[in-house]
Amino acid sequence: MSQRITFTLAATDGRARTGTISTPRGEIRTPAFMPVGTAGTVKAMLPESVRATGADILLGNTYHLMLRPTAERIARLGGLHRFMNWERPILTDSGGFQVMSLASLRKMSEEGVTFSSHIDGSKHKLTPERSMEIQRLLGSDIVMAFDECPALPATEAEVAASMRLSMRWAQRSRDAFGDRPGHALFGIMQGGVTKDLRAESAEALNAIGFDGYAVGGLAVGEGQEAMFGVLDYAPGFLPEDRPRYLMGVGKPDDIVGAVERGIDMMDCVLPSRSGRTGQAWTRRGQVNIKNARHMDDPRPLDEHCSCPACRSYSRAYLHHVFRAGEMISGMLLTWHNLHYFQELMQGLREAIAAGRLAEFVRDFHALRAEGDIEPI
Amino acid sequence: MSQRITFTLAATDGRARTGTISTPRGEIRTPAFMPVGTAGTVKAMLPESVRATGADILLGNTYHLMLRPTAERIARLGGLHRFMNWERPILTDSGGFQVMSLASLRKMSEEGVTFSSHIDGSKHKLTPERSMEIQRLLGSDIVMAFDECPALPATEAEVAASMRLSMRWAQRSRDAFGDRPGHALFGIMQGGVTKDLRAESAEALNAIGFDGYAVGGLAVGEGQEAMFGVLDYAPGFLPEDRPRYLMGVGKPDDIVGAVERGIDMMDCVLPSRSGRTGQAWTRRGQVNIKNARHMDDPRPLDEHCSCPACRSYSRAYLHHVFRAGEMISGMLLTWHNLHYFQELMQGLREAIAAGRLAEFVRDFHALRAEGDIEPI
Repeated sequence: MSQRITFTLAATDGRARTGTISTPRGEIRTPAFMPVGTAGTVKAMLPESVRATGADILLGNTYHLMLRPTAERIARLGGLHRFMNWERPILTDSGGFQVMSLASLRKMSEEGVTFSSHIDGSKHKLTPERSMEIQRLLGSDIVMAFDECPALPATEAEVAASMRLSMRWAQRSRDAFGDRPGHALFGIMQGGVTKDLRAESAEALNAIGFDGYAVGGLAVGEGQEAMFGVLDYAPGFLPEDRPRYLMGVGKPDDIVGAVERGIDMMDCVLPSRSGRTGQAWTRRGQVNIKNARHMDDPRPLDEHCSCPACRSYSRAYLHHVFRAGEMISGMLLTWHNLHYFQELMQGLREAIAAGRLAEFVRDFHALRAEGDIEPI
Repeated sequence: MSQRITFTLAATDGRARTGTISTPRGEIRTPAFMPVGTAGTVKAMLPESVRATGADILLGNTYHLMLRPTAERIARLGGLHRFMNWERPILTDSGGFQVMSLASLRKMSEEGVTFSSHIDGSKHKLTPERSMEIQRLLGSDIVMAFDECPALPATEAEVAASMRLSMRWAQRSRDAFGDRPGHALFGIMQGGVTKDLRAESAEALNAIGFDGYAVGGLAVGEGQEAMFGVLDYAPGFLPEDRPRYLMGVGKPDDIVGAVERGIDMMDCVLPSRSGRTGQAWTRRGQVNIKNARHMDDPRPLDEHCSCPACRSYSRAYLHHVFRAGEMISGMLLTWHNLHYFQELMQGLREAIAAGRLAEFVRDFHALRAEGDIEPI
């Protein structure tokens, strides 16, 4: 695969953009939502079903895969795409965020992080160089630089020190990644909710030079207002001709607000995790299928949705199988949620291309305000 | 649906038979294996996937469905077929067996059984008349007479008394069922492992007259030798022109032995339950995917199997997702197992039609003796 990964902007509407990331493994339509396949599977879904929802790219987790089944084993088995039966693009995170949030007994140094596995307590080390090696072994198409994401609450001084460490790690990631045609390396902007730190971080990343740029350190509990506050300026610090990726976002209204502010890519476990806990997302907001009011309801989750859950099953059925603890509950609700998220992205892309994003966003909020099901 | 349910024998080979049960909801090729959809779902499968394995008919459980979501609710929602999105034939058991094995505080009388729900402890009553009503509310295509299956160990006197009670209940089931064109009522032979009692039971059922006949009271721990011992004579007590259904069977070698002895229909939770616990069934026997020897194995479960699990995934992947507790493990292994069971039935049907069942059975046992994977 010697073809370069390229990003082509097709249209803008205000700060919002739509375009295409072209990779040897297929095109990624932006703005793009990436379902999360933590441990080599998007939970409760077969990969052909994930594709059927409209997903162009999945996210895989370096932290989980390095521990089990290990990156070396996946490489011996032909790489992550073949292993999990997903031949389209995969973006892998660097492991940095999850080491911070999931691993125990972690110890930071300039070199990297040592930590104990949450699975068996075994000792591991992640450095920028090791993260690049793991992501290469996995065969990731879009590789993320290794960074630190400080836990909140943090003082501005702590956020600044952490961001500067991440920028030194970004340079080491760039050096270790080398030149790999057909594979892209993205840098990650940090700096919390402080504009000057965001600007400093962006400047450092721009000086190093990446194929794309992530906005990191958001969606970690700061709230939507603070997040949108940062997104009001941070994407503008990044080069226009590179994809901008907002990590770990989010709810449908977070996604819409982020796209309005110039974000091109997002990922979140929300649609799949919600699906397994009986939460559905529709054009009309959130539906808690556990609620007894669905027990006798012959209507689908959403009359206008074409996913298998809405085409063939009543709310009464979905309520029943959730209560009965049946796997089909998680399977159908996850499928619905991923379908809805992808449909939302398609709507955003079309609205931007047509120059009618403001109208789309107005309708999006108006329908949610009406309640979770159409009046009979 | 005024069309009658009919059974047409196409060929015999020794005592084995192949034919077709025609129903308004579709044809059932016999010998048939019926996957079990206990609570309105074949666990870990979408119904279109169950159909893709080759299943012509599902089994639903009266006991589970009457407790949750209740037969009345399912009837209001348009019946079990619509509720669970399976438009082909459904056979429902009578609830008798599961009341005995699952319900607590049960109390038997000539009239029926009172018991407490395993879900919430609520009180319920099942009689032949109520079982017929529930199965009618569910919309079952093939309804089973209400019977008692005595728990083992039991004395011959206990088995005899229980069988005679079941025969009186069989008459009440027949009376309560009435005439329902497009729906069939099957009687259930009891009598344990005692030939005279089996003969007496068959005579009683034949006198009442049913659309099909089940051999009950086997596969309850008596062992394969004792079961085959009964099957060496019991099917011969039943009319040749009606389907013979062996309830709750079984492992692949049980199925083959039962078909050799003149059985036309079977059901068992084994393929789906095994799938969720990491057990796969192949032409070469049982594979425990949890075993560490699969950890680096790039080969599929079965090189010759065309199911999604075998077409697209390695044993190493199936091992990984089982160890990681991922739902896709149960989804893929259940699909594989159901596919294998249906493929076995197809092989049996073709062999009987071609008059080469003995050869088929010889090959079946020979391949299993070789071990669970082909030598490299």
